[in-house]
Amino acid sequence: MTQPVRHDAMRARNLGLVLGEVHRAAPLTRAALAELTGLTKSTVSKLVGDLVDAGFLAETGPARVGERGRPGVSVVLSGARVASLGLEVNVDYLAGCVLDLSGTVRFSRRIERDNRGRRPARVLRSLQKLADGLLAEAEAAGLSLAGAVLAVSGPVADGVLASAPNLGWRDVRAADLLRLPVPVSLENEANLGALGELWFGAGSPEFLYVSGEIGIGAGLVVGSELFRGARGLAGELGHVVVSSSGPGCRCGARGCLETYAGQEAVLTAAGVRTVEALVRQLAADDPRAVRAVAAAAEALGLALTSAVNLLDLDRIVLGGIFGPLFRWLAPAAESVLADRLGPLRGSVPVLAPSTLGATAATLGAAGTTIHRVLADPASFPVR
Amino acid sequence: MTQPVRHDAMRARNLGLVLGEVHRAAPLTRAALAELTGLTKSTVSKLVGDLVDAGFLAETGPARVGERGRPGVSVVLSGARVASLGLEVNVDYLAGCVLDLSGTVRFSRRIERDNRGRRPARVLRSLQKLADGLLAEAEAAGLSLAGAVLAVSGPVADGVLASAPNLGWRDVRAADLLRLPVPVSLENEANLGALGELWFGAGSPEFLYVSGEIGIGAGLVVGSELFRGARGLAGELGHVVVSSSGPGCRCGARGCLETYAGQEAVLTAAGVRTVEALVRQLAADDPRAVRAVAAAAEALGLALTSAVNLLDLDRIVLGGIFGPLFRWLAPAAESVLADRLGPLRGSVPVLAPSTLGATAATLGAAGTTIHRVLADPASFPVR
Repeated sequence: MTQPVRHDAMRARNLGLVLGEVHRAAPLTRAALAELTGLTKSTVSKLVGDLVDAGFLAETGPARVGERGRPGVSVVLSGARVASLGLEVNVDYLAGCVLDLSGTVRFSRRIERDNRGRRPARVLRSLQKLADGLLAEAEAAGLSLAGAVLAVSGPVADGVLASAPNLGWRDVRAADLLRLPVPVSLENEANLGALGELWFGAGSPEFLYVSGEIGIGAGLVVGSELFRGARGLAGELGHVVVSSSGPGCRCGARGCLETYAGQEAVLTAAGVRTVEALVRQLAADDPRAVRAVAAAAEALGLALTSAVNLLDLDRIVLGGIFGPLFRWLAPAAESVLADRLGPLRGSVPVLAPSTLGATAATLGAAGTTIHRVLADPASFPVR
Repeated sequence: MTQPVRHDAMRARNLGLVLGEVHRAAPLTRAALAELTGLTKSTVSKLVGDLVDAGFLAETGPARVGERGRPGVSVVLSGARVASLGLEVNVDYLAGCVLDLSGTVRFSRRIERDNRGRRPARVLRSLQKLADGLLAEAEAAGLSLAGAVLAVSGPVADGVLASAPNLGWRDVRAADLLRLPVPVSLENEANLGALGELWFGAGSPEFLYVSGEIGIGAGLVVGSELFRGARGLAGELGHVVVSSSGPGCRCGARGCLETYAGQEAVLTAAGVRTVEALVRQLAADDPRAVRAVAAAAEALGLALTSAVNLLDLDRIVLGGIFGPLFRWLAPAAESVLADRLGPLRGSVPVLAPSTLGATAATLGAAGTTIHRVLADPASFPVR
């Protein structure tokens, strides 16, 4: 009774092993794969054949000169069949993208709209339409969906969006409101943004990703993995205390980072309505805009000081609105970090701008499924 | 050539397996051990025999009724031979203890003295004497030292105490200044305090340990392991920002938690010279003492709010001076946490007093070596 199970488990493990090596170092010949995995050439040939048939791998031209033995056909990850869907509900937009197994964004959509005060069911109905459009495009391109992940702008525990104060939502099973042909998992947008930057952007195996939107969140990556905390609620940088008697925050407390450096706080202080307008005013040295961003930068520097003291960070990637504001925001924040951390630590973390911008969370969402498929292809339909 | 190596590696693994099971659930018979480890009874008997000969295990009376098969002799961890040394240099004391493999403290010593402004070599000479005394006691009791760990009150990276602003030390290889018959490793005292509480005290698999001394540090335990951050410097709770324009801190910044809730700050505000005197004044409802602790509690609540937002904590153990002050300090700190975290998280972390008090770090230090021995007994001299 146990033989077939063991055989299947070993085959599943070996499929993941082969796919993982191709992901790390494609293109690879079957001979190179046998050497890297320690499997026999005939086992590798069988596994590669199955993975090609299933649409996970594609064959490409002969290997380069210099490879040992006679040149063989190489394999790469195939973008032709397996794909994943990343979706995002944020306070002022809806977004989604389809990523294929080779890591290429095939289709993406984005709708700017203010979701504050709108009921979850209504917002998710709009997202359903956006997702249906993406799925139709994917299907027309011959892609088959392996899974979907939905990013939301608040802490997520056990599949529930616990609270999104900027949307006015509480305890929402947002993923259950979507009807998709694959299961949908729910995750915090800053965590997914961190994974997006780790896999496709400015991340590194150890860094903090800061997502500056109407709310401010953060995702901590340690050893190339997300640090989630006891219940998956870690990274609420927006509610780190900057001043205990500061302005009232939507969370119910006072003087949280969000009240100084959240999108609404900065735009209001600068007297403009959009981030684009703020950037124009900054470029023109408008004193009110400069003062608004300086205040946000100081608050961000103070909150990041607390974060570095607790988490020991060497690299911090600033995303969301902090991306376009980076050249005005970063020097002042770095100066706070240097003043407060320099003497004790002897070094100050590097601040870097997000390279993915507003697409970080949807890319992280779509990439999550791609990484699950690469780690365990046997769990996904292999025909 | 590889056969003997593989055999040794497997034997080492199996020795650790057997010792681990005894650690979790002693007393155990050889038959129970065979069942738990999946090894054959004859392999277990051989391994147990070797571990008894080496002084890691001891035989005890027949197993209780109800055990399957005929009652056999059980084994437990032996406290008779293998021991470890835990040492601590703090701002106002030196301490050490000898722990045997069964987890019993066999000998301990403590010297109260102000080490501020004294050179590392001089302080470590005093600690050497304390350690020599403990080693003589251990030797006289027939104990053999497996290792030593030294706790210091500042961030440690790569074996170097980077900075201990309250001692006035910087970049000190403190462990190298000791002459002991075993290698000495260096570690931050709050990290070791966290491990002490995890293994012997009020800890749990996920919690934050706060060490309130002249400096304030913290050790984060996640999945029963220390979280160390990118360079091992995580947990500097004492320099989390409480108020950016607050009192000057020894670290060079302003308004760090330490300037409000560190031992010196609290005693000065209360107008007393010792923690014992402060406790007496609090018990007598002295208004100045009550005000001093209320201010410290509010600052601690604010810094812990930032920590919970970033780390997602459900349990916080307060150690050092926060232990004796717990009943006056905790309610006010909890009230800040409830006000600031309640609405967003829907729950507030539990505050609990340390059960080990000032011995947490030396117990964690000594326990570190004991856990290394239990995980890999073959790496320690087995005669």
